[in-house]
Amino acid sequence: MRTALLQSSGRPGSTAENLQVLDAAAGRAAAAGAGLLVTSELFLTGYAIGDGIGRLAEPADGEAADAVAETAARHGLAVAYGYPERDGERVFNSVQLIAADGSRRANYRKTHLFGCFEHDHFTPGDRPVVQADLDGLTVGLMICYDVEFPENVRAHALAGTDLLLVPTAQMHPFQFVAESVVPVRAFENQLYVAYVNRVGPEGEFEFVGLSTLAAPDGTARARAGRTEELLLADVDPAFLAASRADNPYLRDRRPGLYGSLA
Amino acid sequence: MRTALLQSSGRPGSTAENLQVLDAAAGRAAAAGAGLLVTSELFLTGYAIGDGIGRLAEPADGEAADAVAETAARHGLAVAYGYPERDGERVFNSVQLIAADGSRRANYRKTHLFGCFEHDHFTPGDRPVVQADLDGLTVGLMICYDVEFPENVRAHALAGTDLLLVPTAQMHPFQFVAESVVPVRAFENQLYVAYVNRVGPEGEFEFVGLSTLAAPDGTARARAGRTEELLLADVDPAFLAASRADNPYLRDRRPGLYGSLA
Repeated sequence: MRTALLQSSGRPGSTAENLQVLDAAAGRAAAAGAGLLVTSELFLTGYAIGDGIGRLAEPADGEAADAVAETAARHGLAVAYGYPERDGERVFNSVQLIAADGSRRANYRKTHLFGCFEHDHFTPGDRPVVQADLDGLTVGLMICYDVEFPENVRAHALAGTDLLLVPTAQMHPFQFVAESVVPVRAFENQLYVAYVNRVGPEGEFEFVGLSTLAAPDGTARARAGRTEELLLADVDPAFLAASRADNPYLRDRRPGLYGSLA
Repeated sequence: MRTALLQSSGRPGSTAENLQVLDAAAGRAAAAGAGLLVTSELFLTGYAIGDGIGRLAEPADGEAADAVAETAARHGLAVAYGYPERDGERVFNSVQLIAADGSRRANYRKTHLFGCFEHDHFTPGDRPVVQADLDGLTVGLMICYDVEFPENVRAHALAGTDLLLVPTAQMHPFQFVAESVVPVRAFENQLYVAYVNRVGPEGEFEFVGLSTLAAPDGTARARAGRTEELLLADVDPAFLAASRADNPYLRDRRPGLYGSLA
Protein backbone atom coordinates (compact mmCIF):
# COMPACT_ATOMS: atom_id res chain seq x y z
CA MET A 1 0.00 0.00 0.00
CA ARG A 2 1.40 3.34 -1.02
CA THR A 3 1.42 5.62 2.01
CA ALA A 4 1.59 9.41 1.94
CA LEU A 5 3.14 11.29 4.86
CA LEU A 6 1.99 14.90 5.03
CA GLN A 7 4.89 16.68 6.71
CA SER A 8 3.21 19.97 7.47
CA SER A 9 2.24 22.21 10.36
CA GLY A 10 -0.76 23.46 8.43
CA ARG A 11 -2.21 26.73 9.72
CA PRO A 12 -2.00 26.66 13.53
CA GLY A 13 -5.22 27.94 15.06
CA SER A 14 -7.55 27.40 12.09
CA THR A 15 -9.32 24.06 11.73
CA ALA A 16 -11.07 25.26 8.58
CA GLU A 17 -7.80 26.10 6.82
CA ASN A 18 -6.21 22.84 7.96
CA LEU A 19 -9.12 20.89 6.51
CA GLN A 20 -8.41 22.65 3.20
CA VAL A 21 -4.69 21.80 3.40
CA LEU A 22 -5.62 18.21 4.19
CA ASP A 23 -8.06 17.99 1.29
CA ALA A 24 -5.48 19.33 -1.17
CA ALA A 25 -2.87 16.88 0.12
CA ALA A 26 -5.38 14.03 -0.14
CA GLY A 27 -5.94 14.91 -3.78
CA ARG A 28 -2.21 14.88 -4.54
CA ALA A 29 -1.68 11.66 -2.56
CA ALA A 30 -4.53 9.88 -4.33
CA ALA A 31 -3.25 11.05 -7.71
CA ALA A 32 0.13 9.52 -6.82
CA GLY A 33 -1.53 6.19 -6.05
CA ALA A 34 -1.58 6.38 -2.26
CA GLY A 35 -4.17 4.40 -0.32
CA LEU A 36 -3.46 6.15 2.96
CA LEU A 37 -2.57 9.70 4.01
CA VAL A 38 -1.10 10.40 7.47
CA THR A 39 -0.72 13.84 9.09
CA SER A 40 1.41 15.19 11.91
CA GLU A 41 0.32 15.41 15.57
CA LEU A 42 -2.58 17.80 16.25
CA PHE A 43 -2.59 18.73 12.58
CA LEU A 44 -6.22 19.73 12.56
CA THR A 45 -5.76 22.61 15.01
CA GLY A 46 -2.04 23.26 15.46
CA TYR A 47 0.15 22.25 18.39
CA ALA A 48 1.48 25.37 20.14
CA ILE A 49 -1.83 27.21 20.24
CA GLY A 50 -2.15 27.39 24.03
CA ASP A 51 -5.74 27.41 25.22
CA GLY A 52 -6.83 27.13 21.60
CA ILE A 53 -6.42 23.40 22.19
CA GLY A 54 -9.43 23.25 24.47
CA ARG A 55 -11.41 25.70 22.37
CA LEU A 56 -10.91 23.82 19.09
CA ALA A 57 -11.19 20.30 20.51
CA GLU A 58 -14.04 18.24 19.01
CA PRO A 59 -15.50 14.81 19.65
CA ALA A 60 -14.24 11.91 17.52
CA ASP A 61 -17.52 12.07 15.62
CA GLY A 62 -17.67 15.87 15.42
CA GLU A 63 -17.91 18.23 12.45
CA ALA A 64 -14.20 18.10 11.64
CA ALA A 65 -14.35 14.31 11.56
CA ASP A 66 -17.24 14.55 9.11
CA ALA A 67 -15.20 16.89 6.92
CA VAL A 68 -12.23 14.50 6.96
CA ALA A 69 -14.56 11.62 6.11
CA GLU A 70 -15.85 13.59 3.16
CA THR A 71 -12.28 14.24 1.98
CA ALA A 72 -11.37 10.56 2.36
CA ALA A 73 -14.42 9.38 0.44
CA ARG A 74 -14.11 11.96 -2.32
CA HIS A 75 -10.45 11.16 -3.02
CA GLY A 76 -10.82 7.45 -2.30
CA LEU A 77 -8.05 7.00 0.27
CA ALA A 78 -7.84 6.46 4.02
CA VAL A 79 -6.78 9.37 6.23
CA ALA A 80 -5.15 9.25 9.68
CA TYR A 81 -5.09 12.68 11.30
CA GLY A 82 -4.04 14.18 14.60
CA TYR A 83 -6.48 16.39 16.54
CA PRO A 84 -7.47 17.40 20.05
CA GLU A 85 -10.42 15.22 21.04
CA ARG A 86 -13.10 16.50 23.38
CA ASP A 87 -14.91 14.00 25.60
CA GLY A 88 -17.01 15.96 28.08
CA GLU A 89 -14.65 18.01 30.24
CA ARG A 90 -11.62 16.04 29.14
CA VAL A 91 -9.42 16.70 26.12
CA PHE A 92 -7.21 13.98 24.64
CA ASN A 93 -4.33 14.23 22.17
CA SER A 94 -5.73 11.84 19.57
CA VAL A 95 -5.30 10.36 16.12
CA GLN A 96 -8.24 9.03 14.15
CA LEU A 97 -8.22 6.70 11.15
CA ILE A 98 -10.97 7.16 8.59
CA ALA A 99 -11.22 4.66 5.75
CA ALA A 100 -11.60 5.39 2.04
CA ASP A 101 -15.34 4.83 2.34
CA GLY A 102 -15.56 7.60 4.94
CA SER A 103 -16.13 5.28 7.91
CA ARG A 104 -14.36 5.98 11.20
CA ARG A 105 -12.23 2.90 11.84
CA ALA A 106 -10.08 3.61 14.90
CA ASN A 107 -9.37 6.40 17.37
CA TYR A 108 -6.32 6.46 19.67
CA ARG A 109 -5.67 8.74 22.63
CA LYS A 110 -1.98 9.42 23.37
CA THR A 111 -0.96 7.47 26.44
CA HIS A 112 2.48 9.02 27.06
CA LEU A 113 2.19 12.80 27.26
CA PHE A 114 5.38 14.83 26.79
CA GLY A 115 6.43 17.81 28.88
CA CYS A 116 4.54 20.56 30.66
CA PHE A 117 2.53 21.83 27.69
CA GLU A 118 0.86 18.50 27.05
CA HIS A 119 0.30 17.70 30.71
CA ASP A 120 -1.37 21.10 31.10
CA HIS A 121 -3.76 20.60 28.16
CA PHE A 122 -4.48 16.88 27.85
CA THR A 123 -5.69 13.85 29.74
CA PRO A 124 -3.59 10.76 28.96
CA GLY A 125 -5.31 7.87 27.22
CA ASP A 126 -5.46 4.45 28.84
CA ARG A 127 -5.69 2.06 25.90
CA PRO A 128 -2.21 1.14 24.66
CA VAL A 129 -3.02 -0.70 21.44
CA VAL A 130 -5.58 0.59 18.94
CA GLN A 131 -5.71 -1.05 15.50
CA ALA A 132 -7.81 -1.36 12.37
CA ASP A 133 -7.69 -3.48 9.26
CA LEU A 134 -6.96 -1.55 6.07
CA ASP A 135 -6.79 -3.46 2.79
CA GLY A 136 -5.56 -6.55 4.62
CA LEU A 137 -2.90 -4.70 6.62
CA THR A 138 -3.24 -4.37 10.40
CA VAL A 139 -2.68 -0.68 10.99
CA GLY A 140 -1.83 0.61 14.48
CA LEU A 141 -1.98 4.12 15.91
CA MET A 142 0.41 5.92 18.24
CA ILE A 143 1.54 9.52 18.82
CA CYS A 144 5.00 11.09 19.10
CA TYR A 145 6.52 10.41 22.56
CA ASP A 146 4.70 7.04 22.69
CA VAL A 147 7.08 5.60 20.09
CA GLU A 148 10.14 6.43 22.18
CA PHE A 149 9.06 3.80 24.71
CA PRO A 150 10.00 0.39 23.36
CA GLU A 151 7.19 -1.17 25.39
CA ASN A 152 4.52 0.57 23.31
CA VAL A 153 5.76 -0.58 19.94
CA ARG A 154 6.39 -4.07 21.25
CA ALA A 155 2.78 -4.26 22.42
CA HIS A 156 1.71 -3.41 18.87
CA ALA A 157 4.00 -6.05 17.38
CA LEU A 158 2.63 -8.68 19.75
CA ALA A 159 -0.89 -7.67 18.73
CA GLY A 160 -0.03 -8.09 15.05
CA THR A 161 0.41 -4.52 13.82
CA ASP A 162 1.95 -4.43 10.33
CA LEU A 163 2.08 -0.67 9.82
CA LEU A 164 2.31 1.70 12.76
CA LEU A 165 1.20 5.29 12.13
CA VAL A 166 2.87 7.87 14.36
CA PRO A 167 1.82 11.49 13.95
CA THR A 168 4.41 13.52 15.84
CA ALA A 169 5.51 16.99 16.92
CA GLN A 170 9.20 16.24 17.23
CA MET A 171 11.24 19.25 18.22
CA HIS A 172 14.85 20.31 18.32
CA PRO A 173 17.18 18.85 19.70
CA PHE A 174 15.62 15.39 19.48
CA GLN A 175 16.41 14.60 15.81
CA PHE A 176 17.90 11.32 17.04
CA VAL A 177 14.36 9.97 17.43
CA ALA A 178 13.51 10.38 13.74
CA GLU A 179 16.94 9.38 12.53
CA SER A 180 17.64 6.38 14.76
CA VAL A 181 14.89 5.41 17.20
CA VAL A 182 12.16 5.05 14.57
CA PRO A 183 14.17 2.76 12.23
CA VAL A 184 15.23 0.66 15.24
CA ARG A 185 11.59 0.29 16.32
CA ALA A 186 10.74 -1.00 12.85
CA PHE A 187 13.64 -3.47 12.92
CA GLU A 188 13.32 -4.82 16.46
CA ASN A 189 9.57 -5.33 16.04
CA GLN A 190 9.48 -6.30 12.37
CA LEU A 191 6.86 -3.84 11.20
CA TYR A 192 6.64 -0.63 9.17
CA VAL A 193 6.56 2.73 10.97
CA ALA A 194 5.24 5.92 9.38
CA TYR A 195 6.50 8.81 11.50
CA VAL A 196 5.02 12.12 10.39
CA ASN A 197 6.29 15.37 11.84
CA ARG A 198 5.53 19.07 11.93
CA VAL A 199 8.08 21.59 10.61
CA GLY A 200 9.54 24.93 11.54
CA PRO A 201 8.96 27.29 14.46
CA GLU A 202 5.67 27.35 16.35
CA GLY A 203 5.38 29.15 19.68
CA GLU A 204 8.29 28.12 21.86
CA PHE A 205 9.05 25.04 19.74
CA GLU A 206 11.12 24.34 16.64
CA PHE A 207 9.86 21.24 14.84
CA VAL A 208 12.50 19.34 12.91
CA GLY A 209 10.64 17.54 10.11
CA LEU A 210 12.60 14.41 9.06
CA SER A 211 9.39 12.42 8.66
CA THR A 212 10.28 8.81 7.96
CA LEU A 213 8.75 5.66 6.56
CA ALA A 214 10.88 2.97 8.21
CA ALA A 215 10.87 -0.62 6.99
CA PRO A 216 11.36 -3.82 9.01
CA ASP A 217 14.96 -4.10 7.79
CA GLY A 218 15.75 -0.86 9.63
CA THR A 219 16.08 1.26 6.50
CA ALA A 220 14.25 4.52 5.90
CA ARG A 221 12.28 3.90 2.70
CA ALA A 222 11.67 7.62 2.56
CA ARG A 223 12.83 10.48 4.72
CA ALA A 224 11.79 14.13 4.46
CA GLY A 225 13.93 17.18 4.97
CA ARG A 226 12.99 20.04 7.28
CA THR A 227 10.38 21.83 5.17
CA GLU A 228 6.80 21.09 4.17
CA GLU A 229 6.60 17.98 2.01
CA LEU A 230 4.26 15.21 0.89
CA LEU A 231 6.38 12.07 1.23
CA LEU A 232 5.41 8.84 -0.56
CA ALA A 233 6.60 5.31 0.15
CA ASP A 234 5.30 1.78 -0.27
CA VAL A 235 4.40 -0.74 2.42
CA ASP A 236 5.02 -4.21 1.00
CA PRO A 237 3.33 -7.17 2.77
CA ALA A 238 5.53 -9.72 0.97
CA PHE A 239 8.71 -7.95 2.07
CA LEU A 240 7.35 -7.76 5.61
CA ALA A 241 6.62 -11.50 5.70
CA ALA A 242 10.10 -12.36 4.39
CA SER A 243 11.77 -10.02 6.87
CA ARG A 244 9.85 -11.56 9.76
CA ALA A 245 10.99 -15.02 8.71
CA ASP A 246 14.62 -13.82 8.69
CA ASN A 247 14.41 -11.91 11.99
CA PRO A 248 12.43 -14.01 14.47
CA TYR A 249 12.49 -11.57 17.36
CA LEU A 250 8.92 -12.22 18.38
CA ARG A 251 9.45 -15.99 18.42
CA ASP A 252 12.75 -15.71 20.33
CA ARG A 253 11.35 -13.56 23.13
CA ARG A 254 11.24 -15.02 26.65
CA PRO A 255 8.23 -13.32 28.24
CA GLY A 256 8.81 -15.17 31.51
CA LEU A 257 11.93 -13.05 32.05
CA TYR A 258 10.26 -9.67 31.45
CA GLY A 259 8.14 -9.43 34.57
CA SER A 260 9.86 -6.32 35.90
CA LEU A 261 8.63 -4.23 32.96
CA ALA A 262 4.92 -4.41 33.70
CA MET B 1 35.79 5.31 34.40
CA ARG B 2 37.90 4.71 31.33
CA THR B 3 36.73 1.53 29.64
CA ALA B 4 38.74 -0.56 27.19
CA LEU B 5 36.95 -2.64 24.55
CA LEU B 6 39.09 -5.46 23.22
CA GLN B 7 37.78 -6.00 19.71
CA SER B 8 39.48 -9.28 18.94
CA SER B 9 38.69 -12.87 18.06
CA GLY B 10 41.87 -14.01 19.80
CA ARG B 11 43.05 -17.49 18.82
CA PRO B 12 39.96 -19.68 18.37
CA GLY B 13 40.48 -23.08 19.96
CA SER B 14 43.27 -22.16 22.39
CA THR B 15 42.37 -20.92 25.86
CA ALA B 16 46.04 -20.61 26.77
CA GLU B 17 46.79 -18.29 23.86
CA ASN B 18 43.67 -16.25 24.51
CA LEU B 19 44.72 -15.77 28.12
CA GLN B 20 48.00 -14.39 26.78
CA VAL B 21 46.21 -12.04 24.36
CA LEU B 22 43.98 -10.91 27.23
CA ASP B 23 46.93 -10.29 29.54
CA ALA B 24 48.73 -8.21 26.92
CA ALA B 25 45.58 -6.17 26.27
CA ALA B 26 45.07 -5.67 30.01
CA GLY B 27 48.58 -4.26 30.24
CA ARG B 28 47.95 -1.82 27.39
CA ALA B 29 44.52 -0.83 28.76
CA ALA B 30 45.88 -0.22 32.26
CA ALA B 31 48.74 1.85 30.85
CA ALA B 32 46.13 3.98 29.05
CA GLY B 33 44.30 4.58 32.32
CA ALA B 34 41.45 2.11 31.91
CA GLY B 35 39.73 0.71 34.99
CA LEU B 36 37.87 -1.96 33.06
CA LEU B 37 38.62 -4.21 30.08
CA VAL B 38 35.81 -5.97 28.19
CA THR B 39 36.24 -8.78 25.65
CA SER B 40 34.04 -10.17 22.88
CA GLU B 41 31.65 -13.12 23.29
CA LEU B 42 33.32 -16.47 24.02
CA PHE B 43 36.68 -14.76 23.79
CA LEU B 44 38.43 -17.27 26.02
CA THR B 45 37.88 -20.21 23.66
CA GLY B 46 36.65 -18.89 20.31
CA TYR B 47 33.12 -18.95 18.95
CA ALA B 48 32.96 -21.15 15.84
CA ILE B 49 34.94 -24.04 17.30
CA GLY B 50 32.17 -26.64 17.08
CA ASP B 51 32.41 -29.29 19.78
CA GLY B 52 35.45 -27.48 21.14
CA ILE B 53 32.87 -25.43 23.05
CA GLY B 54 31.99 -28.35 25.29
CA ARG B 55 35.58 -29.55 25.55
CA LEU B 56 37.00 -26.18 26.60
CA ALA B 57 34.10 -25.12 28.85
CA GLU B 58 35.11 -24.50 32.48
CA PRO B 59 33.25 -23.65 35.67
CA ALA B 60 33.00 -19.99 36.66
CA ASP B 61 35.66 -20.65 39.30
CA GLY B 62 37.86 -22.83 37.10
CA GLU B 63 41.52 -22.51 36.11
CA ALA B 64 40.88 -19.99 33.35
CA ALA B 65 38.96 -17.78 35.81
CA ASP B 66 41.97 -17.96 38.15
CA ALA B 67 44.24 -16.89 35.31
CA VAL B 68 41.99 -13.94 34.43
CA ALA B 69 41.89 -12.96 38.11
CA GLU B 70 45.67 -12.99 38.19
CA THR B 71 45.76 -10.76 35.08
CA ALA B 72 43.23 -8.34 36.60
CA ALA B 73 45.08 -8.09 39.90
CA ARG B 74 48.54 -7.74 38.32
CA HIS B 75 47.46 -4.91 35.99
CA GLY B 76 45.05 -3.39 38.51
CA LEU B 77 41.91 -3.24 36.39
CA ALA B 78 38.62 -5.10 36.20
CA VAL B 79 38.07 -7.61 33.39
CA ALA B 80 34.78 -8.80 31.89
CA TYR B 81 35.31 -11.77 29.59
CA GLY B 82 33.19 -14.12 27.53
CA TYR B 83 33.60 -17.88 27.92
CA PRO B 84 31.70 -21.17 27.75
CA GLU B 85 30.74 -22.06 31.31
CA ARG B 86 30.46 -25.67 32.43
CA ASP B 87 28.00 -26.56 35.17
CA GLY B 88 27.78 -30.34 35.38
CA GLU B 89 26.40 -31.61 32.09
CA ARG B 90 25.23 -28.17 31.02
CA VAL B 91 27.22 -25.52 29.16
CA PHE B 92 26.22 -21.86 29.25
CA ASN B 93 27.36 -18.96 27.05
CA SER B 94 28.60 -16.69 29.85
CA VAL B 95 30.38 -13.50 30.73
CA GLN B 96 32.17 -13.05 34.04
CA LEU B 97 33.28 -9.83 35.71
CA ILE B 98 36.43 -9.99 37.82
CA ALA B 99 37.41 -6.89 39.81
CA ALA B 100 40.83 -5.26 39.99
CA ASP B 101 41.51 -7.10 43.24
CA GLY B 102 41.01 -10.43 41.46
CA SER B 103 37.65 -11.20 43.07
CA ARG B 104 34.86 -12.69 40.97
CA ARG B 105 32.03 -10.17 41.15
CA ALA B 106 29.31 -11.32 38.74
CA ASN B 107 28.61 -14.09 36.26
CA TYR B 108 25.86 -13.92 33.62
CA ARG B 109 24.53 -16.73 31.45
CA LYS B 110 23.13 -15.65 28.06
CA THR B 111 19.34 -15.84 28.18
CA HIS B 112 18.57 -15.30 24.47
CA LEU B 113 20.50 -17.79 22.36
CA PHE B 114 20.91 -17.00 18.66
CA GLY B 115 20.53 -19.46 15.83
CA CYS B 116 21.18 -23.18 15.46
CA PHE B 117 24.84 -23.16 16.50
CA GLU B 118 24.11 -21.70 19.92
CA HIS B 119 21.00 -23.76 20.53
CA ASP B 120 23.04 -26.89 19.72
CA HIS B 121 25.84 -26.06 22.15
CA PHE B 122 24.38 -24.09 25.05
CA THR B 123 21.67 -24.12 27.68
CA PRO B 124 19.98 -20.71 27.99
CA GLY B 125 20.35 -18.86 31.28
CA ASP B 126 17.32 -17.94 33.37
CA ARG B 127 18.45 -14.85 35.27
CA PRO B 128 17.79 -11.71 33.21
CA VAL B 129 19.61 -9.07 35.27
CA VAL B 130 23.08 -9.64 36.71
CA GLN B 131 24.95 -6.64 38.13
CA ALA B 132 27.92 -5.65 40.24
CA ASP B 133 29.21 -2.41 41.73
CA LEU B 134 32.48 -1.21 40.25
CA ASP B 135 33.98 2.02 41.57
CA GLY B 136 30.51 3.34 42.35
CA LEU B 137 29.05 2.43 38.96
CA THR B 138 26.40 -0.26 38.68
CA VAL B 139 27.70 -2.49 35.92
CA GLY B 140 25.37 -4.93 34.15
CA LEU B 141 26.15 -7.95 31.98
CA MET B 142 24.49 -9.17 28.80
CA ILE B 143 25.59 -11.03 25.66
CA CYS B 144 25.07 -10.28 21.93
CA TYR B 145 21.51 -11.22 20.87
CA ASP B 146 20.22 -10.29 24.35
CA VAL B 147 20.72 -6.58 23.60
CA GLU B 148 18.52 -6.74 20.50
CA PHE B 149 15.50 -7.33 22.75
CA PRO B 150 14.45 -3.99 24.23
CA GLU B 151 12.95 -5.82 27.21
CA ASN B 152 16.36 -6.98 28.42
CA VAL B 153 18.01 -3.58 28.45
CA ARG B 154 14.91 -2.00 29.99
CA ALA B 155 15.07 -4.53 32.83
CA HIS B 156 18.64 -3.40 33.48
CA ALA B 157 17.69 0.26 33.43
CA LEU B 158 14.88 -0.37 35.91
CA ALA B 159 17.35 -2.21 38.14
CA GLY B 160 19.74 0.76 38.04
CA THR B 161 22.44 -0.34 35.61
CA ASP B 162 24.73 2.57 34.66
CA LEU B 163 27.07 0.75 32.30
CA LEU B 164 25.94 -2.32 30.39
CA LEU B 165 28.69 -4.62 29.12
CA VAL B 166 27.77 -6.61 26.02
CA PRO B 167 30.35 -9.03 24.65
CA THR B 168 29.10 -10.02 21.21
CA ALA B 169 29.74 -12.12 18.13
CA GLN B 170 27.91 -9.94 15.67
CA MET B 171 28.04 -11.22 12.14
CA HIS B 172 27.35 -10.02 8.63
CA PRO B 173 24.75 -8.76 7.59
CA PHE B 174 23.60 -7.42 10.96
CA GLN B 175 25.79 -4.29 11.14
CA PHE B 176 22.61 -2.33 11.89
CA VAL B 177 22.75 -3.65 15.44
CA ALA B 178 26.13 -2.08 16.20
CA GLU B 179 25.44 1.07 14.23
CA SER B 180 21.88 1.82 15.33
CA VAL B 181 20.33 -0.57 17.86
CA VAL B 182 23.10 -0.19 20.44
CA PRO B 183 23.06 3.66 20.50
CA VAL B 184 19.25 3.59 20.69
CA ARG B 185 19.39 1.21 23.67
CA ALA B 186 21.72 3.66 25.45
CA PHE B 187 19.40 6.59 24.68
CA GLU B 188 16.03 5.04 25.44
CA ASN B 189 17.30 3.61 28.74
CA GLN B 190 19.70 6.39 29.73
CA LEU B 191 22.77 4.29 30.37
CA TYR B 192 26.13 3.53 28.74
CA VAL B 193 26.51 0.43 26.59
CA ALA B 194 29.88 -1.18 25.81
CA TYR B 195 29.32 -3.50 22.85
CA VAL B 196 32.45 -5.53 22.08
CA ASN B 197 32.62 -7.66 18.96
CA ARG B 198 34.76 -10.26 17.29
CA VAL B 199 36.30 -9.58 13.84
CA GLY B 200 36.84 -11.35 10.56
CA PRO B 201 35.97 -14.83 9.30
CA GLU B 202 35.60 -17.76 11.69
CA GLY B 203 34.05 -21.01 10.50
CA GLU B 204 30.84 -20.21 8.65
CA PHE B 205 30.63 -16.70 10.15
CA GLU B 206 32.01 -13.30 9.22
CA PHE B 207 32.19 -11.04 12.28
CA VAL B 208 31.85 -7.35 11.55
CA GLY B 209 33.69 -5.55 14.36
CA LEU B 210 32.23 -2.04 14.84
CA SER B 211 32.53 -2.32 18.63
CA THR B 212 30.89 0.70 20.20
CA LEU B 213 30.81 2.60 23.47
CA ALA B 214 27.40 4.27 23.30
CA ALA B 215 26.46 7.12 25.64
CA PRO B 216 23.01 8.01 27.03
CA ASP B 217 22.66 10.82 24.48
CA GLY B 218 22.70 8.21 21.71
CA THR B 219 26.15 9.08 20.42
CA ALA B 220 28.95 6.57 19.92
CA ARG B 221 31.76 7.86 22.12
CA ALA B 222 34.04 5.44 20.33
CA ARG B 223 33.48 3.04 17.46
CA ALA B 224 35.95 0.54 16.07
CA GLY B 225 36.50 -0.46 12.47
CA ARG B 226 36.48 -4.05 11.25
CA THR B 227 39.93 -5.18 12.38
CA GLU B 228 41.50 -6.01 15.75
CA GLU B 229 41.59 -2.97 17.99
CA LEU B 230 41.77 -1.90 21.62
CA LEU B 231 39.16 0.85 21.86
CA LEU B 232 39.16 3.33 24.76
CA ALA B 233 36.33 5.60 25.93
CA ASP B 234 35.23 7.22 29.17
CA VAL B 235 32.08 6.57 31.18
CA ASP B 236 31.14 9.80 32.97
CA PRO B 237 28.73 9.54 35.92
CA ALA B 238 28.09 13.31 35.95
CA PHE B 239 27.13 13.29 32.26
CA LEU B 240 24.91 10.28 32.91
CA ALA B 241 23.10 12.02 35.76
CA ALA B 242 22.53 15.17 33.68
CA SER B 243 21.29 13.16 30.70
CA ARG B 244 18.84 11.27 32.91
CA ALA B 245 17.44 14.54 34.23
CA ASP B 246 16.92 15.77 30.65
CA ASN B 247 15.40 12.51 29.35
CA PRO B 248 13.00 11.15 31.98
CA TYR B 249 12.01 7.99 30.15
CA LEU B 250 12.02 5.85 33.26
CA ARG B 251 9.82 8.30 35.17
CA ASP B 252 7.42 8.72 32.24
CA ARG B 253 6.82 5.00 31.76
CA ARG B 254 3.32 3.63 32.41
CA PRO B 255 3.94 0.06 33.59
CA GLY B 256 0.22 -0.56 33.98
CA LEU B 257 -0.09 -0.47 30.18
CA TYR B 258 2.70 -2.97 29.47
CA GLY B 259 1.08 -6.16 30.71
CA SER B 260 1.12 -7.87 27.31
CA LEU B 261 4.92 -7.94 27.26
CA ALA B 262 5.48 -10.26 30.22
